[in-house]
Amino acid sequence: MEITKPTLLLNKEIALRNIENMVRKANDLHLNFRPHFKTHQSAEIGEWFRDAGVKAITVSSFTMANYFADCGWDDITIAFSVNIPEIPQMNELAGRINLNLLIENKEGLEALQEKITWHAGVFIKIDTGYNRTGIESTRTPLIDQLLENIQKSPLLHFKGFLSHTGHTYLANSTHDIFSRHFDALLKMKSLKARYISEWPELMVSLGDTPSCTLCDNFDGVDEIRPGNFVFYDLMQFKLGVCKLSDIAVRMVCPVIAVHSSRNEVVIYGGAIHFAKDSVTNIDGKQLFGRIIIREGENKILLDERNYLHALTQEHGILRITPRDLNLFKPGHLIEILPVHSCLTANLMREYMTNEGETIKMLPLV
Amino acid sequence: MEITKPTLLLNKEIALRNIENMVRKANDLHLNFRPHFKTHQSAEIGEWFRDAGVKAITVSSFTMANYFADCGWDDITIAFSVNIPEIPQMNELAGRINLNLLIENKEGLEALQEKITWHAGVFIKIDTGYNRTGIESTRTPLIDQLLENIQKSPLLHFKGFLSHTGHTYLANSTHDIFSRHFDALLKMKSLKARYISEWPELMVSLGDTPSCTLCDNFDGVDEIRPGNFVFYDLMQFKLGVCKLSDIAVRMVCPVIAVHSSRNEVVIYGGAIHFAKDSVTNIDGKQLFGRIIIREGENKILLDERNYLHALTQEHGILRITPRDLNLFKPGHLIEILPVHSCLTANLMREYMTNEGETIKMLPLV
Repeated sequence: MEITKPTLLLNKEIALRNIENMVRKANDLHLNFRPHFKTHQSAEIGEWFRDAGVKAITVSSFTMANYFADCGWDDITIAFSVNIPEIPQMNELAGRINLNLLIENKEGLEALQEKITWHAGVFIKIDTGYNRTGIESTRTPLIDQLLENIQKSPLLHFKGFLSHTGHTYLANSTHDIFSRHFDALLKMKSLKARYISEWPELMVSLGDTPSCTLCDNFDGVDEIRPGNFVFYDLMQFKLGVCKLSDIAVRMVCPVIAVHSSRNEVVIYGGAIHFAKDSVTNIDGKQLFGRIIIREGENKILLDERNYLHALTQEHGILRITPRDLNLFKPGHLIEILPVHSCLTANLMREYMTNEGETIKMLPLV
Repeated sequence: MEITKPTLLLNKEIALRNIENMVRKANDLHLNFRPHFKTHQSAEIGEWFRDAGVKAITVSSFTMANYFADCGWDDITIAFSVNIPEIPQMNELAGRINLNLLIENKEGLEALQEKITWHAGVFIKIDTGYNRTGIESTRTPLIDQLLENIQKSPLLHFKGFLSHTGHTYLANSTHDIFSRHFDALLKMKSLKARYISEWPELMVSLGDTPSCTLCDNFDGVDEIRPGNFVFYDLMQFKLGVCKLSDIAVRMVCPVIAVHSSRNEVVIYGGAIHFAKDSVTNIDGKQLFGRIIIREGENKILLDERNYLHALTQEHGILRITPRDLNLFKPGHLIEILPVHSCLTANLMREYMTNEGETIKMLPLV
């Protein structure tokens, strides 16, 4: 199929290799592998995981849980603290699959106790330093109280402690990723030590893409839930987590205009295609993507002095060195490595594989 | 219908009033009104414009042009410089409606001449200072050459000069909006003066939401194409373009957790709902939305010391003053005024009106 507008290309081989590597790592470390499907949001890509032996998954919303349950996944954790207004709708899902929910406060637990009519697993969400949400690991009086209440609910089954060490994304070095991961490990281990005698089945669930890719010490952890690794992206590359050759997605964009007076190229591909996450480039400016030139069958990655440096609704602006400006002509197709593959995929809603196959995602509405 | 997850509310009365005001202004100033439909992307909202007397529209992509042509719009300008790979597909559309395209370079025009098989209007895209794309108004040798070539094409009909004064969005004051608009006016007028004798029908098409809302001098302009004004948003409010009561869209979000130790509230509503455009708040920090509390039937807008200050994929983080923290409880629904309504609507793909009706947008894939 001919590409005529912004199209998200997915290199299936790279994605399969990324999946395989993470499956192998989880096996080697004897960790339960429950990958996060919010990155790809696709039934078909889910099957690639199933083929690799994956049986349990993580999602970030009730909507996504329903979609993947309809695709035959019967063991799903919604890794987002329980959204009280949605609880009544969750009963049907809890009745047909093993559903795990997160709580982090009394209100969420009380609402669950009041409205749940089917069995559900419950993780307590721990904040290991990301400071987005969850209970700090030292707040054991609150945890004690929640556990006491969970015990009173015949339909709620305490599964363990879950955390997202999202501050590894904000690390300044790979060393920093290791130390943040290690700090999270210690916090989760201390919780496990405190509660394991009373709850011998309790699990510790951890694991973002940076730590799951780089770190080998998962002492005390039972389960990992990385998601982004299936595609990786420039943010992960910039963090030192992946190589450029590990990035499985690229956006194909047509060139619209070349402005040699200011060393800029305009492409069809904007904020509604890429989303607006950026990393800092070598020149201190925001970088929204790296550029790959197609010359016949050859693909040439340009250096960082050439980059996607601004986005409006449909327009992308490339900053290009005078030397490389002649590589761009209106009507040509170029490729862009995205900064944050999760948000880019979420906007595009479908992929085209390197074999020309279209892969659909969960419909938005 | 009960709201249980992030939902984009549309106040129909406000949107109708915004449409009515702009229609009246265009009529008063004897300007052709060709509103940009990329903000709402909805067949049904399009009908509200039709009811107000609108007959011609602007869109930003060929995909959007097809969608609105299927809704009965037969006079459409694609205000995005021609995307060469899509030209072959454009012929069918050009055959059934009055289609206007933009060119800004020889390559685009040559491709059109080569591949178009049906009549199409052609605007020359002028850069009046936004420096995103288009031809600078002083580059008349290039314009002469393009016009000479257009004349050779029996299927291409020169319509005039079109510009988007997008740098009004970057203005530091309303005075600045006026001066940027006036500068654009002068540039377009000089082009008109130069070419009107040879092309007596030529039109000047201008008009972004800030200048169309605030300015009354459209001397030499024939047509305006604002889009955002149908909803407005916090960016326009911050620019001094609209009042908060003119903003027609709000996101309803459930509260997930309250973190009193750091004066933060976590909501279900993140980057995949709002997009990541921000404005600078009074404290110098990024603001992604203003907060409205629902107390029974009453809605209370909190001051700017309370605001949406961070977004990850599904999570939003509110910064809340200690005094107001007790207004938030897990499970409550709050409302957020978005920073950039175009990108927010683009992500949500549907609206719920204040009458509880669901309004669909153009399907993404």
